[in-house]
Amino acid sequence: MSESQSRQGAIASQQPLAVRVGAEFAGSFFVCFAIYMMYSISAILFGVNMPFYVLATALAYAAVTAMFSKISGGQINPAVTIASMLTNATAVLDGILYIIAQVLGATAAAAVLRFILPTNDTVTLKTWFSTAVNGFDSASPTYSILSSANINFGVTMAIVAELIAGLIIVGTALRTSGAHCHGAGSHARAWSIGAAYGVATTITYPITGAALNPARSTGIALLGMNADLTQNPVEQLWVFWICPVLAAAIVSLVVIVARMIASNATRPTN
Amino acid sequence: MSESQSRQGAIASQQPLAVRVGAEFAGSFFVCFAIYMMYSISAILFGVNMPFYVLATALAYAAVTAMFSKISGGQINPAVTIASMLTNATAVLDGILYIIAQVLGATAAAAVLRFILPTNDTVTLKTWFSTAVNGFDSASPTYSILSSANINFGVTMAIVAELIAGLIIVGTALRTSGAHCHGAGSHARAWSIGAAYGVATTITYPITGAALNPARSTGIALLGMNADLTQNPVEQLWVFWICPVLAAAIVSLVVIVARMIASNATRPTN
Amino acid sequence: MSESQSRQGAIASQQPLAVRVGAEFAGSFFVCFAIYMMYSISAILFGVNMPFYVLATALAYAAVTAMFSKISGGQINPAVTIASMLTNATAVLDGILYIIAQVLGATAAAAVLRFILPTNDTVTLKTWFSTAVNGFDSASPTYSILSSANINFGVTMAIVAELIAGLIIVGTALRTSGAHCHGAGSHARAWSIGAAYGVATTITYPITGAALNPARSTGIALLGMNADLTQNPVEQLWVFWICPVLAAAIVSLVVIVARMIASNATRPTN
Amino acid sequence: MSESQSRQGAIASQQPLAVRVGAEFAGSFFVCFAIYMMYSISAILFGVNMPFYVLATALAYAAVTAMFSKISGGQINPAVTIASMLTNATAVLDGILYIIAQVLGATAAAAVLRFILPTNDTVTLKTWFSTAVNGFDSASPTYSILSSANINFGVTMAIVAELIAGLIIVGTALRTSGAHCHGAGSHARAWSIGAAYGVATTITYPITGAALNPARSTGIALLGMNADLTQNPVEQLWVFWICPVLAAAIVSLVVIVARMIASNATRPTN
Repeated sequence: MSESQSRQGAIASQQPLAVRVGAEFAGSFFVCFAIYMMYSISAILFGVNMPFYVLATALAYAAVTAMFSKISGGQINPAVTIASMLTNATAVLDGILYIIAQVLGATAAAAVLRFILPTNDTVTLKTWFSTAVNGFDSASPTYSILSSANINFGVTMAIVAELIAGLIIVGTALRTSGAHCHGAGSHARAWSIGAAYGVATTITYPITGAALNPARSTGIALLGMNADLTQNPVEQLWVFWICPVLAAAIVSLVVIVARMIASNATRPTN
Repeated sequence: MSESQSRQGAIASQQPLAVRVGAEFAGSFFVCFAIYMMYSISAILFGVNMPFYVLATALAYAAVTAMFSKISGGQINPAVTIASMLTNATAVLDGILYIIAQVLGATAAAAVLRFILPTNDTVTLKTWFSTAVNGFDSASPTYSILSSANINFGVTMAIVAELIAGLIIVGTALRTSGAHCHGAGSHARAWSIGAAYGVATTITYPITGAALNPARSTGIALLGMNADLTQNPVEQLWVFWICPVLAAAIVSLVVIVARMIASNATRPTN
Repeated sequence: MSESQSRQGAIASQQPLAVRVGAEFAGSFFVCFAIYMMYSISAILFGVNMPFYVLATALAYAAVTAMFSKISGGQINPAVTIASMLTNATAVLDGILYIIAQVLGATAAAAVLRFILPTNDTVTLKTWFSTAVNGFDSASPTYSILSSANINFGVTMAIVAELIAGLIIVGTALRTSGAHCHGAGSHARAWSIGAAYGVATTITYPITGAALNPARSTGIALLGMNADLTQNPVEQLWVFWICPVLAAAIVSLVVIVARMIASNATRPTN
Repeated sequence: MSESQSRQGAIASQQPLAVRVGAEFAGSFFVCFAIYMMYSISAILFGVNMPFYVLATALAYAAVTAMFSKISGGQINPAVTIASMLTNATAVLDGILYIIAQVLGATAAAAVLRFILPTNDTVTLKTWFSTAVNGFDSASPTYSILSSANINFGVTMAIVAELIAGLIIVGTALRTSGAHCHGAGSHARAWSIGAAYGVATTITYPITGAALNPARSTGIALLGMNADLTQNPVEQLWVFWICPVLAAAIVSLVVIVARMIASNATRPTN
């Protein structure tokens, strides 16, 4: 089994950097295009639907992870890439290029969506984008319900929810990557990661619209910054970068400490 | 592991052509019958339901892929077969017979549906089929909602959405077939493919009714061409052939280029 | 790998018959109790919900198949057992005992449900059971919608839908059982079977209430025969036995013929 | 294969106790936070939604089991830990610490939720918590519907439903743990366990709000005991401890008896 592991590790490192960066771009484009379509067109035409958001988000990340897991690892999310760099599973330069590719992929998806969406005087870009961007306070997807009762979901709540969601996503991605993944396991791993994004959507959607991935938040925010939204999405973007990155740092720290405890106990494992 | 791979390859090629073509016919029949039932009977009786469409489409392709993956590869979709031919995973003659079988399977499913559906003066074939065929503009499933706001989802939008959906489907199918699939992986692979169709349904349903598969679009269109639909489904069928085939060509090209880059870098992989 | 297969076969046959029959009883009890709860309590209190029925049915069969697949094969469904007998994967006497255990398990589940359901003069057993039994014509779950348009889903439609659903279920179960299942594959197999039941629910629910399994139909029908239902469920039970058994016979025949073709071509496979 | 099993057993026992207990705390925190968010915020804002509850519960347990299965086994649920102790798969002292960690994790999740939930004079803690605690009779989530028909779901019904749900959860967890789980199977196992919790949610939600896990019930009950709920959740907590523990005892007994029968028949299996 250790032979199979090292062989797989070898295959992964054999993929040229350009191919791996391209995979991260394409993966981010596919996932974000699906998510933007869901939160703009379907949300506007068919209304809020939690099981749909949870299911489709889980399937999107699962399918794309399965597609690219043997090329770049299918990280897709800058938070996962940062955790992978901090735990030495991805080289720093590679990781930086992955993150740039992820953000560009998401931005391209948002740009394609903006290009194809039909608009006129009554149905504007604001109509389509207002439910697709991430936000809190007056930009939370449940603001209109909450404000009628004089409450709202503010920045503290957004940070706590996105942080916990980030821990689940990064924890699952890290625990199931690299040496933990053998042969047929790469598909099963894709499903575990999909499940993590599904849970994270459950936790965060009513508060922030389910950011979960800084690339996903950034792409639609950049294209929506001139869409006359009530709240400019770029101004709240810092939360959707800080929380996942903080989650990546915490998970990486826990993994490193756990490795040290385990290595002190008997001998290094995993 | 390479031994197990070659053995599996050997087993696949051992299945006689007639059995493999029969599997593609049966697989296409099962998937399309389920999808037609969902978009005709359930859509008419219970209304539009995105999580249902996404879930049931994913399960249909997953189950049928699992059933036939060790016989014909469970390609089911002409776009997957074309990509498989272009990347030399399926022989050209075999592929052509697969595609014919897939279209015949879908047509048989639509014919059985037409035969059993109860109709009278008020509930006509048009009632049952109008939500099951694929289309855009006035044939889009969301046309009635959109037209009240003087917008519609036209041919450009249909092409972009179906093309991106096709890239996800063909990409997942190609990345997870042949040498990438070992032993127990064939089941896990079926689920990744199911996930890809689920994501693709998320992207395309509000625009085209989720074509995704030329066989699925053709079968119901042929049986619905005399059903007095507002828009004859056969006239829009070209979009649902062009987009998946184009997606197959793009994915095949990317795979071939990636192989060349990888083979220039060190040595051939995958 | 052939060594691992034969070893697994050996382990399966080592389980004493009493344990295997007990597993079929328990598996049928768990699956049917979940399905009866869903179609009685949840359907009455929360209304018809297709994605719920498809998802919960798929999860029920997947979980129970995973639980018992290494004991009795987790057949649960008489149609699967009959196909397993016809293709020589299960001994005839064992199969007959399995089927009896499956029907008793389903009946016990229906009896427990009847025992705990609260009733009074307005909420009778008829209220709870009318949506949980399988039927067609006036006993179809969509009869009240259809009858207002002077159409109905009759016996032909019920037979065609249940037969196609049965082919999908038995085909998936047979293709993924016995020698096709290695090690970790038993879990992945459970999910393929769950998917098959999910698709089958999509096809049959609006017509018959999704019978799919003669044990499931029989258990609730026996307990509901004195519940003053508009249509005595026992009288329509023959359809829900004939169709799955016919599906089992067809799939077995196809498997046997395919084996013969393959064995004539080169040498026996799978 | 027996070598791989013993190796995996060895790896599991190599993880230091502190790491394993920490994993159970974190796993319980993640699962319970997701479940509390779903049953408080989403239930209040978007209404009861069975497919959402079933799907998100399944994904939550699947993701967290995948994350921690190679550390502590990802037991998360005191009932699973008790069954694991009774069948000698987990040492008694370890198991007691696991259970404490699970209850503390759930309590921490409920405390974080209480801390971030916005309240005022009209939207109180009672508003948010009333749909998140487990209960029966007047605390059942369907009480308001049922009481209008002069019926209710009492303690007997709660006990039967939670007991059967517990048997499914513990049975799946036990049958798929330890020696039954090889390599890539740990992911597939996570999905089988997720499926079991999904089925269990289907069975119990309308009656008790889907307790299933004593830690989940206890955490929110402790934080909700001063929330002025109509029924103090702590007073009904005994049912949500008794039923899963009883289920654990029954499953353990069945496993032990089945092992004895199998060992008398020929030689020890499993």
